Amino acid sequence: MDGPILVIDRGGGRRVGEQLVDGLRRGILDGALRQGDPVPSTRALAAELGVSRSAVVAAYEQLAGEGYLEMRQGAPTRVAELDHAHAHGHERSGHHRGAARAHAPAVGVPPESVAPRIDLLPGRPSTARIDTRAWRAAWRQAAALDIPSNSPPPFGVRHLREEIADHLRHARGVACDADDVVVTAGTSEAVGLAASALTSIVGRAPVIAVEHPGYPSARRTLERRGARTAPVAVDADGLVVDALRRMPQVPDAVMVTPSHQYPLGGRLPVAARLELLEWAGSAGAVVIEDDYDSEFRHLGPPLPALASLDDGGGVVLVGSFSKVLTPWLRLGYLVLPQSQALREAIDDIRADEPCPVPGVVQDAAAALLASGAVRRHIAVTRRDYAHRRRLVLDALDGIPGAPLSGLDGGLHAVVRLPGHAASAAVVAGLAAEGIAVASLGDYSAVPGDEEPGIVFGYAGPGDTQLAEGLARIRAAILAVV
Amino acid sequence: MDGPILVIDRGGGRRVGEQLVDGLRRGILDGALRQGDPVPSTRALAAELGVSRSAVVAAYEQLAGEGYLEMRQGAPTRVAELDHAHAHGHERSGHHRGAARAHAPAVGVPPESVAPRIDLLPGRPSTARIDTRAWRAAWRQAAALDIPSNSPPPFGVRHLREEIADHLRHARGVACDADDVVVTAGTSEAVGLAASALTSIVGRAPVIAVEHPGYPSARRTLERRGARTAPVAVDADGLVVDALRRMPQVPDAVMVTPSHQYPLGGRLPVAARLELLEWAGSAGAVVIEDDYDSEFRHLGPPLPALASLDDGGGVVLVGSFSKVLTPWLRLGYLVLPQSQALREAIDDIRADEPCPVPGVVQDAAAALLASGAVRRHIAVTRRDYAHRRRLVLDALDGIPGAPLSGLDGGLHAVVRLPGHAASAAVVAGLAAEGIAVASLGDYSAVPGDEEPGIVFGYAGPGDTQLAEGLARIRAAILAVV
Repeated sequence: MDGPILVIDRGGGRRVGEQLVDGLRRGILDGALRQGDPVPSTRALAAELGVSRSAVVAAYEQLAGEGYLEMRQGAPTRVAELDHAHAHGHERSGHHRGAARAHAPAVGVPPESVAPRIDLLPGRPSTARIDTRAWRAAWRQAAALDIPSNSPPPFGVRHLREEIADHLRHARGVACDADDVVVTAGTSEAVGLAASALTSIVGRAPVIAVEHPGYPSARRTLERRGARTAPVAVDADGLVVDALRRMPQVPDAVMVTPSHQYPLGGRLPVAARLELLEWAGSAGAVVIEDDYDSEFRHLGPPLPALASLDDGGGVVLVGSFSKVLTPWLRLGYLVLPQSQALREAIDDIRADEPCPVPGVVQDAAAALLASGAVRRHIAVTRRDYAHRRRLVLDALDGIPGAPLSGLDGGLHAVVRLPGHAASAAVVAGLAAEGIAVASLGDYSAVPGDEEPGIVFGYAGPGDTQLAEGLARIRAAILAVV
Repeated sequence: MDGPILVIDRGGGRRVGEQLVDGLRRGILDGALRQGDPVPSTRALAAELGVSRSAVVAAYEQLAGEGYLEMRQGAPTRVAELDHAHAHGHERSGHHRGAARAHAPAVGVPPESVAPRIDLLPGRPSTARIDTRAWRAAWRQAAALDIPSNSPPPFGVRHLREEIADHLRHARGVACDADDVVVTAGTSEAVGLAASALTSIVGRAPVIAVEHPGYPSARRTLERRGARTAPVAVDADGLVVDALRRMPQVPDAVMVTPSHQYPLGGRLPVAARLELLEWAGSAGAVVIEDDYDSEFRHLGPPLPALASLDDGGGVVLVGSFSKVLTPWLRLGYLVLPQSQALREAIDDIRADEPCPVPGVVQDAAAALLASGAVRRHIAVTRRDYAHRRRLVLDALDGIPGAPLSGLDGGLHAVVRLPGHAASAAVVAGLAAEGIAVASLGDYSAVPGDEEPGIVFGYAGPGDTQLAEGLARIRAAILAVV
């Protein structure tokens, strides 16, 4: 670049940050800052303009959010290739349970529309109605306790384990004991812990059957902990138990989402549940039951958790407060069967890698659960989500060639689409309008066997945003069917 | 068992819990409950005696604490073998960085003395002087913020990363940028994350050189994440850099504690640091610098961190607030070099397994750091620990045949002992007196090459307890040298 990019006017009353953002944006649109080129380092630009470095950082961040700049950790910040810019949606969407992490907007879209305005990626609950008085009181209570000089106990703080057992009895009908509960940093840590425990028990890389399509993050987490995963087909009812029997190698474990198959939404019927348990018993396999959103059941009675049907002692229940409260809390749990091998393996791991949930968080969560605020919040959000689910049905049900499904429970829905081109066009078109949804193909556990469609969450945004998002989803679908 | 074990007297004014504990203890001492036998389930005993189950649970827990019962998760609770009872010290000592997790008290000791009264296992700081006003204010501040509905950002909340960079500049002289900081759930999560990232970069099980003797939990954590570890010798100055060159296979990484070798206490001289970096540069190896207690330097100036000497970009600094504040907080960090491969690998992992540190904790920690309370706490505890270190020297320095070392920095010390029998007798004898110390042999990374000696922390207990502990350590040592 020759000459200054912009000049800061200190007399004109406009804030420095605003001037920075406007000047840089203009420079990019003018071509003074060329697409794909690195921008000056924040240090250099701050020095050149005589402004604080943090003002430059903030300006870059805003422009990255607007899609003008591309920030990749570890790489210099660059001017985005505006014609085929990628929205690197991490700070916004790094959280979702789904797969798609960045969506390529359509060609020629003005950059203003690149940053997702309406985040419909699955996995986000509504936090707007959390009882903030109870929330603050719980933290205040926890912060007032003595500060121990050790790590939290390996399986978690006792009174939290009791409250979680209680919560599972009430919200989920799972009869378990505090002794059976292991506190975890959300579902992903629970899944990793289970995989590490299995690896240590079988003394080699365990083979873990996973649903196809299924939760890709969990699959990769299992693999990162030394397991090999093997896909098992899913139908409208969830996992196909017969497919487990046909596997060339008997797996050491199967990870399953019986309450609300992720992402397709099937609910495993009781007969299939019993069949699955029978298979597991005879195969000597552990069942990892991922019960990620079963607190929210909209249609049909909740079915008993596998863990509560099991008398062979091979079901590990995995759950979290990510949907019930917020993934911001990073709080989940494992409920262990009466398997001494699993307990000892987890005990050994946690002796090396202490329970990662901070003691204060455990104390605060226990206080919040004990206050009844969580139970009330579930009741309130259940109504909210039922209403939003209605909005989804009103907007998207019955479009020929684009069947809507997955809405019996949980916080997300699936629309199947006729072909991959249609699917890609819908995802990209919505992204270009600032609406983030996931692509169903990203959930495939078998490369080359991707189903066309979209997956989206409907719990996170407010009603107005959701209504707009749904209208745009409808329009995008109608354009391709 | 025939007949009731005990009868609860509801008229006598004594609390049910007390009667339960006394009755059961008497039953064990009388032989009515036989050593090694399982006790009745809490449910059964509660029903039999007509008391609440939680009262029975509490009584069993107290008796386990006293050493009369053995509780193992997943196994029935049993009457301890009192003649060679094991204190399963998990709830107390599952946290420590060290190896030894259970200590066998000497034969014939009355069970009352089995539960550790004085915990001198390494890894425990003092929390008595944490500024509780600042602590509570920080949590209050964090709890008052809006509750996001997503996970924390992959590398952590921005303002915490800034405060950590700032902390490292002040407390450690490490010049780093917020962009370089990854927030972790303590050291163990950081080590696991680094190992997973290396595995994904090299595309196979990475070979990671580890110190021998060294930190056994970290070694196992690396292995659990798919790495193979290879021992490298340590001398009085820390890691022997030459030994790295002699390794049959060039490792992909080396994990090292240059500031205060764990457990031996050596401090890697600057020349060796530069040599290590040169070796790493030419071998293309990553250096994982575990800087676990360098904020506390008692003798000699602090040496620059490897991360600050490095210009090749291959040092990952790992640290935590476990010593500076408390391991109860489960808060640590990685500082990344300018290696895009590492950043991208960690970014990918964190997209599947979100940053496990709850957002509220990140906000509270940032507030606490910003308040200056952490810096003041380090200054205060530095003086406290220097005083306690003096007590250690006064009690244990200069015993012939039992050299004391490791006291230049940090919060723990080592006493070498003449032979394994002497070492085992000291550890067991102290355990029998209710004093928990670790065995140096447990830190060996080479089976069969264990050094006799003990490792103990001096930061956790108060002065009076420490003085008693040290007097008993001295007596135990004098009995074997």
